[in-house]
Amino acid sequence: MPKLILVRHGQSEWNEKNLFTGWVDCRLSDVGEKEAKRAGELIKEAGIKADILYTSKLSRAIQTANIALSAADQLYIPVKRSWRLNERHYGALQGKDKAETLETYGKEKFQIWRRSFDVPPPTIEDDSKFSQAGDERYNDVDPAVLPKTESLKLVIDRLLPYWQDEIAKDLLDDKVVLVAAHGNSLRALVKHLDKISDEEIAGLNIPTGIPLVYELDSSLQPTKPAYYLDPEAAAAGAAAVAAQGAKK
Amino acid sequence: MPKLILVRHGQSEWNEKNLFTGWVDCRLSDVGEKEAKRAGELIKEAGIKADILYTSKLSRAIQTANIALSAADQLYIPVKRSWRLNERHYGALQGKDKAETLETYGKEKFQIWRRSFDVPPPTIEDDSKFSQAGDERYNDVDPAVLPKTESLKLVIDRLLPYWQDEIAKDLLDDKVVLVAAHGNSLRALVKHLDKISDEEIAGLNIPTGIPLVYELDSSLQPTKPAYYLDPEAAAAGAAAVAAQGAKK
Repeated sequence: MPKLILVRHGQSEWNEKNLFTGWVDCRLSDVGEKEAKRAGELIKEAGIKADILYTSKLSRAIQTANIALSAADQLYIPVKRSWRLNERHYGALQGKDKAETLETYGKEKFQIWRRSFDVPPPTIEDDSKFSQAGDERYNDVDPAVLPKTESLKLVIDRLLPYWQDEIAKDLLDDKVVLVAAHGNSLRALVKHLDKISDEEIAGLNIPTGIPLVYELDSSLQPTKPAYYLDPEAAAAGAAAVAAQGAKK
Repeated sequence: MPKLILVRHGQSEWNEKNLFTGWVDCRLSDVGEKEAKRAGELIKEAGIKADILYTSKLSRAIQTANIALSAADQLYIPVKRSWRLNERHYGALQGKDKAETLETYGKEKFQIWRRSFDVPPPTIEDDSKFSQAGDERYNDVDPAVLPKTESLKLVIDRLLPYWQDEIAKDLLDDKVVLVAAHGNSLRALVKHLDKISDEEIAGLNIPTGIPLVYELDSSLQPTKPAYYLDPEAAAAGAAAVAAQGAKK
């Protein structure tokens, strides 16, 4: 039966500095590399053999996949990448830290952009140094469809076509599919799979570096609740992500 | 115009121990990882932007590509892998060192298997611990076509269909194609591109970790001699490979 394994990338250099990252292509920190290795070890210990890997186009997700598959002795599997698995685009907030954002926009707007389902931050200007305008990694994508800001709702809108056309096809072939991506693109996928409401998704936090496994039926419905390969670490990790959000 | 960049993986754990490796999936040594990083830095310094990556199915080539593309800031490019880019299969010699091979088979046969164009070593038995029979990384390949030993001629025979159908297609689309592979699969490709005779190919040594660039015309013929991104290091590296062969 088809199996889907989701891995959220570990700590990046910008997570460490507490900056809004979004589509800015920062790298994993040393901590993030260790998290990725642990993810691969968990996959190996669980006896899971992935048939195919999907990643976003962002280095921190690709690094996570490369390190994890090396640790799991599965470097050889085929790979597909898409911008549709990228992190949420944070618009004009990209590159800013909490203090700067609060000062510029005020607390109320800040909270809405972080936690509302469908209110995106202001769009980023093309001449911002944190804009992806002209970034050659998206040369194979219609420029009209590339976002300049996103709400979680917009992430879902752009992710689902890729799920339906590509990832679902491999799952319907009974493959074991590994997806290495980001907090918000994975929340979008989990919302879809677990039919979580627009209100409740705000409370869902996915821990970094711990594989989350979905066992699916032939209609791609979960046959049982998804489970983390290290449930204790996952609970602690989700609490840490929630606390980080609350702190902000 | 199309451009092809070939990178031979750096030192592996078995190169270090001087064992016949072939299709055995050993990893890069620390030296090999450094060579891969240097390859990526050379690509970046040369201002080369790859559009697509091809690798074999063996970890040491994939590791080389992953490390090099990370150093070159090009992790995001699409990837294709094929067993047709694998190292030459060394048959029953796989896992043996020089002394063991000489003792078992004698000096004359040993030299013929190392350097002749079309005499493969004895086939490997399926129950050898160095056999790839049943290796799941080849689950997507017709078992009848998977080799149990190979001469360089047989490497060429299995590589060319992939060149013609896959790599050539991307080059004909004017892409910059990066191939991370092995001493003998790259010698096979270079023999084809440079029209080297069956006799002369024995003298061709490709250094590890130094990108070799082919600029091609619309018929995929080289418009000038291929060049290494670090010619001095390449000359020293090729001499070292030649010396290693002579020593054996």
